[in-house]
Amino acid sequence: MEKIEHIGIAVKSLETSNPLFAALFGKPHYKVEEVASEGVKTSFFQSGPNKIELLEATNPDSPIAKFIEKKGEGIHHIAFAVSDIVSEIARLKDEGFVVLNETPKKGADNKLVAFLHPKSTNGVLIELCQEID
Amino acid sequence: MEKIEHIGIAVKSLETSNPLFAALFGKPHYKVEEVASEGVKTSFFQSGPNKIELLEATNPDSPIAKFIEKKGEGIHHIAFAVSDIVSEIARLKDEGFVVLNETPKKGADNKLVAFLHPKSTNGVLIELCQEID
Repeated sequence: MEKIEHIGIAVKSLETSNPLFAALFGKPHYKVEEVASEGVKTSFFQSGPNKIELLEATNPDSPIAKFIEKKGEGIHHIAFAVSDIVSEIARLKDEGFVVLNETPKKGADNKLVAFLHPKSTNGVLIELCQEID
Repeated sequence: MEKIEHIGIAVKSLETSNPLFAALFGKPHYKVEEVASEGVKTSFFQSGPNKIELLEATNPDSPIAKFIEKKGEGIHHIAFAVSDIVSEIARLKDEGFVVLNETPKKGADNKLVAFLHPKSTNGVLIELCQEID
């Protein structure tokens, strides 16, 4: 776990939340990206070595739509940067964590990603992500 | 906002959660600190330039006890490092954010801190923190 790569925040509307977070950071988002496989549209803000990823659902079955329905807008996950996601998945499985993606999948922002089930991590949805070369 | 200084995670028991996060990070927490004024005991883990702060309530009136009662264990707040907390509070008030501590207060880990009300930040409790010289 080299650093917090980003924090994912579930929002109802990027149109509303982008200006809000731009005011917070004193600068606009630098990227918008849709991840069709996850049913989300994302926007990214930079904060030094870290990023904030706003997540808006693009359909009612999206995990983000379900999260907002259940818990309201707010922090959805923490993503940690790892240099070797395959070995990190193996290590965490050995430690007893429930890995939701035994084979990493393609995420936003040119990353291979895998999630840990929040039941095994004190209610925190944790993403591992490795930059794709 | 220079970086994510730390993420605060509300837990029921540091005794249970410290080994869990040590397994996650592959290394133990490096510090335990009680903040009596907030009714919390904290432990810190390092992840590169960022920290994870576990928060256990030390009494039933602690904000952490109330958070867990309402939402269960999980991510409680994001803290951003700022170099001048007084001017940052003024800037954010001007932008329309609801600042809960107009005068910064002493927090854990040798910091001056102030919080923004989550109602003004998409449900995210945001802490500003400045290292005390």
